[in-house]
Amino acid sequence: MCRWAAYRGNALFIEDIVSSPAHSLIAQSHSATEARTPTNGDGFGIAWYGEREAPGLYRDILPAWSDCNLKSLASQIRSPLFLAHVRAATSGGTRRDNCHPFVHGRWSFMHNGQIEHFEKLRRPLETMLPDHLYATRAGTTDSELIFLLALHFGLETAPLPAFREAIAFIEHLATHLGYQAGVRFTAAFSDGNRLYAVRYATDENAPTLYASAMSAERGYCLVSEPLDDNRQNWMRIPDGSAVIIGADGLEVSVFETDTSLDFAMPMVAAQ
Amino acid sequence: MCRWAAYRGNALFIEDIVSSPAHSLIAQSHSATEARTPTNGDGFGIAWYGEREAPGLYRDILPAWSDCNLKSLASQIRSPLFLAHVRAATSGGTRRDNCHPFVHGRWSFMHNGQIEHFEKLRRPLETMLPDHLYATRAGTTDSELIFLLALHFGLETAPLPAFREAIAFIEHLATHLGYQAGVRFTAAFSDGNRLYAVRYATDENAPTLYASAMSAERGYCLVSEPLDDNRQNWMRIPDGSAVIIGADGLEVSVFETDTSLDFAMPMVAAQ
Amino acid sequence: MCRWAAYRGNALFIEDIVSSPAHSLIAQSHSATEARTPTNGDGFGIAWYGEREAPGLYRDILPAWSDCNLKSLASQIRSPLFLAHVRAATSGGTRRDNCHPFVHGRWSFMHNGQIEHFEKLRRPLETMLPDHLYATRAGTTDSELIFLLALHFGLETAPLPAFREAIAFIEHLATHLGYQAGVRFTAAFSDGNRLYAVRYATDENAPTLYASAMSAERGYCLVSEPLDDNRQNWMRIPDGSAVIIGADGLEVSVFETDTSLDFAMPMVAAQ
Amino acid sequence: MCRWAAYRGNALFIEDIVSSPAHSLIAQSHSATEARTPTNGDGFGIAWYGEREAPGLYRDILPAWSDCNLKSLASQIRSPLFLAHVRAATSGGTRRDNCHPFVHGRWSFMHNGQIEHFEKLRRPLETMLPDHLYATRAGTTDSELIFLLALHFGLETAPLPAFREAIAFIEHLATHLGYQAGVRFTAAFSDGNRLYAVRYATDENAPTLYASAMSAERGYCLVSEPLDDNRQNWMRIPDGSAVIIGADGLEVSVFETDTSLDFAMPMVAAQ
Repeated sequence: MCRWAAYRGNALFIEDIVSSPAHSLIAQSHSATEARTPTNGDGFGIAWYGEREAPGLYRDILPAWSDCNLKSLASQIRSPLFLAHVRAATSGGTRRDNCHPFVHGRWSFMHNGQIEHFEKLRRPLETMLPDHLYATRAGTTDSELIFLLALHFGLETAPLPAFREAIAFIEHLATHLGYQAGVRFTAAFSDGNRLYAVRYATDENAPTLYASAMSAERGYCLVSEPLDDNRQNWMRIPDGSAVIIGADGLEVSVFETDTSLDFAMPMVAAQ
Repeated sequence: MCRWAAYRGNALFIEDIVSSPAHSLIAQSHSATEARTPTNGDGFGIAWYGEREAPGLYRDILPAWSDCNLKSLASQIRSPLFLAHVRAATSGGTRRDNCHPFVHGRWSFMHNGQIEHFEKLRRPLETMLPDHLYATRAGTTDSELIFLLALHFGLETAPLPAFREAIAFIEHLATHLGYQAGVRFTAAFSDGNRLYAVRYATDENAPTLYASAMSAERGYCLVSEPLDDNRQNWMRIPDGSAVIIGADGLEVSVFETDTSLDFAMPMVAAQ
Repeated sequence: MCRWAAYRGNALFIEDIVSSPAHSLIAQSHSATEARTPTNGDGFGIAWYGEREAPGLYRDILPAWSDCNLKSLASQIRSPLFLAHVRAATSGGTRRDNCHPFVHGRWSFMHNGQIEHFEKLRRPLETMLPDHLYATRAGTTDSELIFLLALHFGLETAPLPAFREAIAFIEHLATHLGYQAGVRFTAAFSDGNRLYAVRYATDENAPTLYASAMSAERGYCLVSEPLDDNRQNWMRIPDGSAVIIGADGLEVSVFETDTSLDFAMPMVAAQ
Repeated sequence: MCRWAAYRGNALFIEDIVSSPAHSLIAQSHSATEARTPTNGDGFGIAWYGEREAPGLYRDILPAWSDCNLKSLASQIRSPLFLAHVRAATSGGTRRDNCHPFVHGRWSFMHNGQIEHFEKLRRPLETMLPDHLYATRAGTTDSELIFLLALHFGLETAPLPAFREAIAFIEHLATHLGYQAGVRFTAAFSDGNRLYAVRYATDENAPTLYASAMSAERGYCLVSEPLDDNRQNWMRIPDGSAVIIGADGLEVSVFETDTSLDFAMPMVAAQ
């Protein structure tokens, strides 16, 4: 199921989101309350933006609750924009390349959700990738693949349309191959400037997403589940929404896939 | 809290206890039902007897549910006597040397429980060890230390009295230093010939212990919680008991520490 | 570069090949003498046949010289046929799925060598795989891919022809795409009954391969470099050879790829 | 044998010392040129000072050459004072707690060298530690123990005298117990303000130590072996020296242990 948290604002210590709160991301790695399972112990990762164009990336397969390195890094690194994730594996074994966030150039991405029938869709979806993206495919998760497809569909110039198309393509492909289309997609991504999130599911039953303003830091955080019990501080983002956090603040808009889009389906030989 | 399972009888594939049952040890690593926490994801280990005098030992820090090596080994290795453990850490970080079982010569040992105030008792207890056992102290758990103390108190010649003395010593030391004595000790150990278990707690509230006869294999298994729902197959071992499984079968006896024992307390300088 | 060792004969403790000899495989992991680099510290693995049809498999990313689990397993497990490998990475990062041996059903495979220009050939080669083999592709090495191609070309019915075709195909593909063909292939594989090895290179400069009879055990071992200094015990296998070890003993034959074979080249779009 | 590198000056990306140079620390992890062995693949670590009083600490057991996390962290983290180390194990197994640097409060420490007959001296040395330092003893290396002894002997108020006493104590103890005294100690340590190094050996054959001024950064680095071939930039620090780098620059002085010191030897029972 996974849990994640992201922040954009004045530079904050990563621990202020990942370790310190009453129901921090590390706490959620063993006792999540709004996920299908309480345990998200199949690895973790943080991606943070600093002086470089590309973000830093630290991922490991240990449960987040037992990693001393994570605690030390989170306590030392201050960043104005970062993503953090704890994993409950659905597709793909436990190894660093299957931990989120994923990074490509200056883009980072993390995901909570899954692609139904992924084992049937995986190959045709990988076939869609152009060579330079295929070459970077390092793991076996549906999450990494959605990210690579979005890069193919123009993430670097138009992020939300790119994911809209990627998800619509996956839904079309499933139907085309005779399966029930099903994508659950509560994700966050960033280019180091804006922080984006999407909450979407084919069956309108996407994993939860909350936002909170952190006025002292002139910032916002986005989370799978609130980091504390002050429920009035946490705005529940509705299903079928996109969030953009930029220098101007936070903006919510409708996110739906375009059912009228027509795709050339990849050639999939009968096997 | 930890969960464990042990077997003695005709040679059995380790997976028949660790992986295959409905509520196998691997299942208990993420969904234990009779432990304080359902998750026991701070490492695992197996020790098994074969042709050598000393047992084989395989331990790692990954949660048992995600380790492919464990599944393969358990599916391949057949043994007439083995111990298997999944860890929920109380004292001591997550690393191989803090995973159970522990092995010394031909003896293996695993433990569910803890020593109250261990951080205060650790040093005086380590001071008790003779040089050759001190030199083997590789981790920082209370469990490993109880094992080493029992070796010091004659485990190799009289196993149950050795643990009786070791536990009594710990209780005395705590009282001597002004702390509330508290040892919880549901453990299994073996020399490769007999399989022993003890269920004991100072406050008579020891973690659970069950035994089951596996008649087809002319064997017995001992577990923290039953491996399936057939409750009539599982004999609950009462608090304050010792179990010995040998060629002759299974025997249960009373296990208590001797409150009349007098120990020379180690010199503990005021610091 | 990698180093490996394999054995077939009366059941032998794995350590008799992997740990105990003067120049054991573990010794070769830090001080290989006939490899391009002395260090082969990018992971290791063992596959061994026992009671099951499929072999057991234990792989990890630590250098072989520092893994206590490997020493214990090798000391406990006795097997009539096993493969062991220590890795020096060329293509593919350091992770368990990139460690050898690879296993598919009852077949195991390990490799020393590489495919020239693999980063250009990887995608077309993966395109060749039928769905059921594509779905098992877990890593990113050229080695795993050669194995999967051989399975596609009929490894399970005719092992040596299957590898002959797979290698010829790779050479043809390279030429077809405008690259210099170059495959270095000193490999061992088994179905649990016979132990096979091949020493081949496009440029006739394949990594070394030796064989030795172990008469006491009525067995043979195959190695990258001899396990001890008694050079008269080690038969150097010439370049362009295949070795089959079965119940009848050891047989060496010529191994060459068939330059007359004609392949339908996969459709590779200009990107 | 180990290799290390440290820096103090204007904030520098850690990679400028650890990854980028022609003969960087990561290069030295597989191909050291002035060490007993070229391979230092038994783990690595970095400690760096930033906004907190205590340094950050990242250590892992993988060879430095294969860790993606290390490369990313080194590329992102800028620090005015940091220590970095790659390990070749002498005493103590391969695990995070045995990797350098070690950290205590705001102090960090790393070491190249060893204590002769450590297996005999370990227990009496650990006995010397006051309770609060004994409780922090997490690993089994001689290096960590020298650091804890120095803390006991007043590192926090007088760093160089503290190490002088600690080393002298170890030498006395060895002699007292009938062994040949032998300490090899080329180490670096810091409180986040000054960077210290010592090059000392009982037999005057200490591992090498070099210093270089990095004038553009108004800084200095200290290394086991030069990071590049410009030998004129690297000042060889003689045996029996201490180096202090502070805001005022770099200062070298004589470092010797005081053979006239008289110590009360710990009570070591004949065993």
